[in-house]
Amino acid sequence: MTTDSIGTLEKLDEQGRKIVFTHARTSNSFADTPVSDEELREIWELTRWTPTMANTQPARVLFVRTPEGKERLLPHIAEGNYAKTKAAPATAIIAVDKNWHELIPTVFPHNAGMKDNFDGEHAEELRLQLGSYSAALQTGAFILATRAVGLAAGPIKGYDAAGIDQEFFPDGAWTTQLVINIGHPGENPWFDRLPRVPEDIALAWA
Amino acid sequence: MTTDSIGTLEKLDEQGRKIVFTHARTSNSFADTPVSDEELREIWELTRWTPTMANTQPARVLFVRTPEGKERLLPHIAEGNYAKTKAAPATAIIAVDKNWHELIPTVFPHNAGMKDNFDGEHAEELRLQLGSYSAALQTGAFILATRAVGLAAGPIKGYDAAGIDQEFFPDGAWTTQLVINIGHPGENPWFDRLPRVPEDIALAWA
Repeated sequence: MTTDSIGTLEKLDEQGRKIVFTHARTSNSFADTPVSDEELREIWELTRWTPTMANTQPARVLFVRTPEGKERLLPHIAEGNYAKTKAAPATAIIAVDKNWHELIPTVFPHNAGMKDNFDGEHAEELRLQLGSYSAALQTGAFILATRAVGLAAGPIKGYDAAGIDQEFFPDGAWTTQLVINIGHPGENPWFDRLPRVPEDIALAWA
Repeated sequence: MTTDSIGTLEKLDEQGRKIVFTHARTSNSFADTPVSDEELREIWELTRWTPTMANTQPARVLFVRTPEGKERLLPHIAEGNYAKTKAAPATAIIAVDKNWHELIPTVFPHNAGMKDNFDGEHAEELRLQLGSYSAALQTGAFILATRAVGLAAGPIKGYDAAGIDQEFFPDGAWTTQLVINIGHPGENPWFDRLPRVPEDIALAWA
């Protein structure tokens, strides 16, 4: 961040707010305009700076964007999400690395020994719980990063996660957390905007 | 989103990417510059548009920003996070509404009956699991929204969640998920930037 002096941070301008937050929508159809691997890498380049617990960054992303990859993925997608997942030029499978603690010496070098707290089978449940939470924070950023690079994101929850894990992550190290279709919006891409939780319910003050 | 024609979305410019993603940092100290309730509401106004499962938006935010509120919060903050939490002009407690399903008729009106799938005590565990995930996606957006409005965010994990719940949410409907200090950066606010997971480990392709 550019801080010329203590206490001075810049604000995102109105146009940027629209692109990333207020006008962006979940796309429900995709055009056949291709998306390059370079564009997909650009999403990750933005996402990867977002904070996670002790910088552990447990999220992993499998980008499915070849016809062969799509053919392996589609049998595990629910009917209501099938057509748009087939049409999307790329589909990101966001997974959690169940063994994210192995990288602690790399990503948290000043306290490499923290890895020991998460070693072993008895810590598996704890690793999955903490890893899933930090990966979800990263996924929240990933969706906004997709918009930032000028692409539409369509997160879907209708799929067989165990089937995807079996097909793409047979060694069991990664586990699927969310599937996000990525591309350029197609015909009638946006449903009517749905209501937001009223502020007096969502927010409290103390 | 401004789509003049199918397939055209705008990209966030370089400056916007720096503010929200690439140059933003977790602040570890805060100046005594105040933060207004209006600024805190502005964070929420950006956050609330981010997608959640079936638009359920289970995250709730308690903004603690009065001396009385801080006095109630601080006893539940771990030693290593105490000084910065005391110094931050505002602290957001991100909570999950365990009964988010009650609002389905409001936020998902075309399928109000979906609420029934989550009714009752036997669905409590499922509600907490799904609600926690969607709330974490919202929290990922909240952190970036804080940066977008020109404020520094400092998420912390060292606190007694049960103690905070007991103090602020005694009726048991909300449960604490993350504590985020908010303000303007103080002295030496940024630690050295920590390494990111290498791309060949974080990304896979199919």
